[in-house]
Amino acid sequence: MLNAVGREIPDEILKLTGKEPFQGNNYKEGVEYRKQGPIVKPVMDHNTSKMVSSIREALEKCGAHDGMTLGFHHHFREGDLIVNMVMKEVHDMGIRDVTICASSLGKAHDPLLEYIEDGTITGIESSGVRGKIGEAISHGKLKKPAIMRSHGGRVRAIQSGETIIDISFIGAPTCDDYGNCKGIGGKSDCGVLSYSFVDGQHANKVVAVTDCLVPFPNFPADVAMTRVDYVCVVDAIGIPEKIATGAAKPTTDTRKIMMADYCTQVVINTPYFKEGFSYQTGVGGASIASAALLAKIMEERGIKMGFAVGGMSKGMVDMLDKGLVGKLLDTQDFDLFAVNSVKHPNHHRISAGAYANPFNKGSFVNKLDYVVLAALEVDTHFNCNVVVGSDGIITGAQGGHPDAAQGAKCTIVICPLLQGRIPAICTDVTTVTTPGESIDVVVTDYGVAVNPARQDLLEALKKADCVPLRTIEELRDIAYDIVGTPQPVKFGERIVGIIEGRDGTIMDVVREVK
Amino acid sequence: MLNAVGREIPDEILKLTGKEPFQGNNYKEGVEYRKQGPIVKPVMDHNTSKMVSSIREALEKCGAHDGMTLGFHHHFREGDLIVNMVMKEVHDMGIRDVTICASSLGKAHDPLLEYIEDGTITGIESSGVRGKIGEAISHGKLKKPAIMRSHGGRVRAIQSGETIIDISFIGAPTCDDYGNCKGIGGKSDCGVLSYSFVDGQHANKVVAVTDCLVPFPNFPADVAMTRVDYVCVVDAIGIPEKIATGAAKPTTDTRKIMMADYCTQVVINTPYFKEGFSYQTGVGGASIASAALLAKIMEERGIKMGFAVGGMSKGMVDMLDKGLVGKLLDTQDFDLFAVNSVKHPNHHRISAGAYANPFNKGSFVNKLDYVVLAALEVDTHFNCNVVVGSDGIITGAQGGHPDAAQGAKCTIVICPLLQGRIPAICTDVTTVTTPGESIDVVVTDYGVAVNPARQDLLEALKKADCVPLRTIEELRDIAYDIVGTPQPVKFGERIVGIIEGRDGTIMDVVREVK
Repeated sequence: MLNAVGREIPDEILKLTGKEPFQGNNYKEGVEYRKQGPIVKPVMDHNTSKMVSSIREALEKCGAHDGMTLGFHHHFREGDLIVNMVMKEVHDMGIRDVTICASSLGKAHDPLLEYIEDGTITGIESSGVRGKIGEAISHGKLKKPAIMRSHGGRVRAIQSGETIIDISFIGAPTCDDYGNCKGIGGKSDCGVLSYSFVDGQHANKVVAVTDCLVPFPNFPADVAMTRVDYVCVVDAIGIPEKIATGAAKPTTDTRKIMMADYCTQVVINTPYFKEGFSYQTGVGGASIASAALLAKIMEERGIKMGFAVGGMSKGMVDMLDKGLVGKLLDTQDFDLFAVNSVKHPNHHRISAGAYANPFNKGSFVNKLDYVVLAALEVDTHFNCNVVVGSDGIITGAQGGHPDAAQGAKCTIVICPLLQGRIPAICTDVTTVTTPGESIDVVVTDYGVAVNPARQDLLEALKKADCVPLRTIEELRDIAYDIVGTPQPVKFGERIVGIIEGRDGTIMDVVREVK
Repeated sequence: MLNAVGREIPDEILKLTGKEPFQGNNYKEGVEYRKQGPIVKPVMDHNTSKMVSSIREALEKCGAHDGMTLGFHHHFREGDLIVNMVMKEVHDMGIRDVTICASSLGKAHDPLLEYIEDGTITGIESSGVRGKIGEAISHGKLKKPAIMRSHGGRVRAIQSGETIIDISFIGAPTCDDYGNCKGIGGKSDCGVLSYSFVDGQHANKVVAVTDCLVPFPNFPADVAMTRVDYVCVVDAIGIPEKIATGAAKPTTDTRKIMMADYCTQVVINTPYFKEGFSYQTGVGGASIASAALLAKIMEERGIKMGFAVGGMSKGMVDMLDKGLVGKLLDTQDFDLFAVNSVKHPNHHRISAGAYANPFNKGSFVNKLDYVVLAALEVDTHFNCNVVVGSDGIITGAQGGHPDAAQGAKCTIVICPLLQGRIPAICTDVTTVTTPGESIDVVVTDYGVAVNPARQDLLEALKKADCVPLRTIEELRDIAYDIVGTPQPVKFGERIVGIIEGRDGTIMDVVREVK
């Protein structure tokens, strides 16, 4: 059947997954559910030790078995060593049919290809994948359809019991012998551990893996001892230079600078731009440039931001240091400036759930005034695609995109009109990952389009006469005029991936690439 | 049947409650259970408001009904206005058969007597009760047996689903419109909200009640917006001068000073007294005097405490200010010094669960080296009673007594030999609330007794020759010689209260007073 973004969701996949098709952003608002309760093994005896000598011992003590689901977080990004380390041990133990439920997977995890091919790994649930895993999924090598969900959606899936994690492995830059894990300190410093909070709360077994054991209590902990069954010390959990990279250089790309300027103009000329406004931005060149421009105007006008939320990088840290923002609510650190800023008293660590879980009683994204996001494609229904490349291969991640986009009062997507020879503004995105009803403004290098559902914003921008306004169809037409109408990707029949809506409904399916 | 502390637990009460008799401290160590998952009503729509105009509206929106269980915390202590305010409304709505599950109840709640007598309230679960509620229970006025459990035990009962809280009311000194609750700030400042964390996590509905609404986000929150359904602003939630009282005056009671000195000698002459040791103490005169003596010796010897945990007052705050303790892990603030210290970067708020829940994967009490506690009675089996007066009336609270006593490596109970004309050291306590296996050393004004199970401690103290050592029987005999053998309290047959062990087993029963 057709879902609310006009995508055909085959009955077979609804049956297979027990899911519903996407029916609009607030379909599940106020619909009560019961949270999943994990199985807990109490530690009352003060003589009980949690230390294990190897990943193997941890797996054995946790009852690792065929068909299990393992949880991982991605705060070490392309420097992550944990997933491969654990999966090698799982493979060597002869365990099969494992599902990986990770907050994200990247090129660092290319070595998993072997385990996908030999049946060790048959399921993947992630915000997204890149590199060889994405190719493998798109070429039909994974037994089960991969599930791609947002950061908030992962928390929802785990809290609602849709995904039961048997064992979660938490890479902890510092940890004590009782399992108090922190993202800060040690040699694999990643700042925060926000994505793993839910694993601590809901996985049946939790293993902390660290390369820096510190004295008890490692407090305040990101994931607390009360949630951790075992502690394992290994040589290295991450490759530092690939975890938190240096600062992104200021962009010199005139196209990006133009889009940054349009974006800033949109922000400052819409009604939410006032003392105490809230804001989230990404780490693309245009987003960073826009944040810098915005900071300048805030200083000039004496307007301060109440809070910023999401992944953090130099731009927001600079604002905090200048006193331009009240609080940073941090889920991920993209550079060393952000990592080092975590010690600032107004730089707070929050869980992915507090950030974006649609099924709690209100998350921070609901309180956002503005979010600035990127996209691979935006279509004339304002639907966005951030996961599937124009070649049909899975190569990106939802991240917090659908979460912040729904939550914010004004959601701005920055997207150059063309990605090389491919129109990024198009009639229909290859795959819908964020529904058009969440998107308010699209900023391109050829002008700015406002979602017709937001006449209030359109009027404000018209009145300000600050950016070249176009309809989304006009932008699409310009793109098609330049590079021609694109040919749709040729997919096969087999469904290899599911794009999950925040609320667990099916937003779209991804088919095998021919 | 007889339980592990030799108390007769009638089969009828085992059947009625579905509980087991107490079988020793570590009976449930490692026994897996499934955590209760609360019912959650998601808030996804950013237009949803949580504000309600009255307690009545909150009760109605939460579906208040006959037979429901309500949760409350006791951080406002004798200045609490929330329980009475909510119960008046419940009564006026004609709702009956309500169970109150509070972290504690005191004389502030005397007005509830009327609701006990008229059947509005038929069940009470609490750490303890004082005043008219205690008298009412002991005289058989409450329909169901009252359940008295420790602070850790309450968390266990709620997390395990033994107690399902339908609606919890969280008195919040500051709160924003989305339900972020803090114990600090406002006009009813109580410092921390540790006992209510579990209500936020497991109650089906959560109402924040505040007399100081602050701008969003009131962060970092003690109980987060993600857990809160409704926010209600009222005129006053507490009486400030009864919440956090002034500092306890240094004791001049020579008996207390002597016991303080013995206690300090026990600490410094046992093997856990070394750099980084951990410690908890109470707020009795002797405990406070002992902490002051200890601080002096620590300064002289250059020994620092790693962490202190539990309820906080001036003594520990002074140690923190002098740099004598690494971290204060705070569950309750007894005086204004403690309240004001919460802003210190090493003064941390922790949940009652992290403090003492026996059914998580290890709580802070498990990591205690020393705890110094008081008791109404200690018997020759080292069993303690902290709940039932020598007249048989319920008049005290377990608090964290059984939790810290089991957790600590060296548990010291300070107890004057005589309470007026009543021997506090006796053959059998009136009611067992903490089992003797948890108690290592008993300090009295007539000497110090070491539990024979701890020959290591006895040897250390003998070697140090620092305190007058007696057997517990010798102390009992001295008491009986002075005031005569006490007559046991005359109880009726009816069971009016259950003293629950930390793990949910039955430690003892309390019978109606004739």
